[in-house]
Amino acid sequence: MSKINKVVILGAGNLATQLAIALHDASVNIMQVYSRTMQSASILAEKVNSTALSDVKNLVVNADLYIFALSDKALQPVLDQMPIPIGDVVHTAGSIPMDIFDDYTECYGVFYPLQTFSKNRKVDFSSIPICIESNNLGLQEDLMELAERISTNIHLIDSEQRKQLHLSAVFTCNFANHMYSIGQKLLAEKDVDFDLLKPLIKETAEKVQELDPVSAQTGPAIRFDKEIMTKHENELKDLPDFQKIYRFVSESIFTMHSEKK
Amino acid sequence: MSKINKVVILGAGNLATQLAIALHDASVNIMQVYSRTMQSASILAEKVNSTALSDVKNLVVNADLYIFALSDKALQPVLDQMPIPIGDVVHTAGSIPMDIFDDYTECYGVFYPLQTFSKNRKVDFSSIPICIESNNLGLQEDLMELAERISTNIHLIDSEQRKQLHLSAVFTCNFANHMYSIGQKLLAEKDVDFDLLKPLIKETAEKVQELDPVSAQTGPAIRFDKEIMTKHENELKDLPDFQKIYRFVSESIFTMHSEKK
Repeated sequence: MSKINKVVILGAGNLATQLAIALHDASVNIMQVYSRTMQSASILAEKVNSTALSDVKNLVVNADLYIFALSDKALQPVLDQMPIPIGDVVHTAGSIPMDIFDDYTECYGVFYPLQTFSKNRKVDFSSIPICIESNNLGLQEDLMELAERISTNIHLIDSEQRKQLHLSAVFTCNFANHMYSIGQKLLAEKDVDFDLLKPLIKETAEKVQELDPVSAQTGPAIRFDKEIMTKHENELKDLPDFQKIYRFVSESIFTMHSEKK
Repeated sequence: MSKINKVVILGAGNLATQLAIALHDASVNIMQVYSRTMQSASILAEKVNSTALSDVKNLVVNADLYIFALSDKALQPVLDQMPIPIGDVVHTAGSIPMDIFDDYTECYGVFYPLQTFSKNRKVDFSSIPICIESNNLGLQEDLMELAERISTNIHLIDSEQRKQLHLSAVFTCNFANHMYSIGQKLLAEKDVDFDLLKPLIKETAEKVQELDPVSAQTGPAIRFDKEIMTKHENELKDLPDFQKIYRFVSESIFTMHSEKK
């Protein structure tokens, strides 16, 4: 029988919302949802048939697991207000080491779903990698079992690796998305619809599901085609931020491609 | 009845290959495939039941359309060797103005499929935007009709807009793909498999099929979370290329996000 059946969710942001929904759909009892404001706590609590609260003093003490899905900045202040001793805890953050919990409780860990979450976009959790770490073997097993109820893609990842995963995710998700934003902005200047780029964006992401991204690369930078690159930089002369990005990313593409040969 | 039924493909690279296959599948007669080397011409010619050649002097003169799907650098030298007068011609390049054909023939245009092509990855042409331009209304109509035989996503785009589309495509495709390559390289340093990033890459691309990319943005840069950003820059201290990209892209994300507010 699974050990973790009653959980408390601390946080009501994008990740907290999607994770709470996935756990609720997997028949996990979400006893309480905490948020700094009662309003956001209530919105999520209602979705997962739970109780909202905005004061950690009112937390139940008998949950099997307390999941801190707060912003990195909010985690420490909320921890400091917690009734001590608290039970088993995890956080869901890429960039925070597990031992932030060391002064607060005995058994702790990390439950890090590697995905980009928006509040109003339901994601299919089943393929999302969940990265587990714990200071306690028993809790580690329980966390893996809990993760298996919502995903088929579970990994044991230590704090050092998770830090690197988070950094890599900033590049592959946030920065890739910013390249889309730049594309959109450039097209708008010439009255061209962003829709024209959508199939390209999709195929670029699909391609690296099978091919190595360095091998999948195309375009002027891998051939260091100076003529096109200079033309492009000139076209960006009134957008110095984009021009700098154009130059440095092109140089980095060429360097990586040369190293590969 | 469609006017364009017999075409000659000049080029045997990624785009030439995929386009020739799509046209062949749509029952267009690929009369000849030209490439600088007989070997690459033959490989493609065989796939589309065509004749290979490596000397433009041997081109047939009765094709309905000559499609120049050559690299930007090869286009002019091959044009200079063409038997004059040549018939109706188009090129498939994002960054070359249509009037490159002005000294060579009367009716010309552009047939630009906006996608990233690899030789051995068959793409579904039906959703690929095909951008059409011509100096002749009759040819423009024929090109649109030809495009409709392989795609449902046809656009009239002038040379100025196409230039901007090409620049935008470098950001959204080549540069986004480079963000994947950086992610892969960072993970390899800590023995973490690139597979873990794949669902994130996919969802990031899926998200902007519906949401505006500026609204879809997440991560430390939009909040200008100095603490995490400084940590990340420190982690990249031995990779100065990636560090520069990290800094400039983060600043650009923050600027764009502030402008939106």
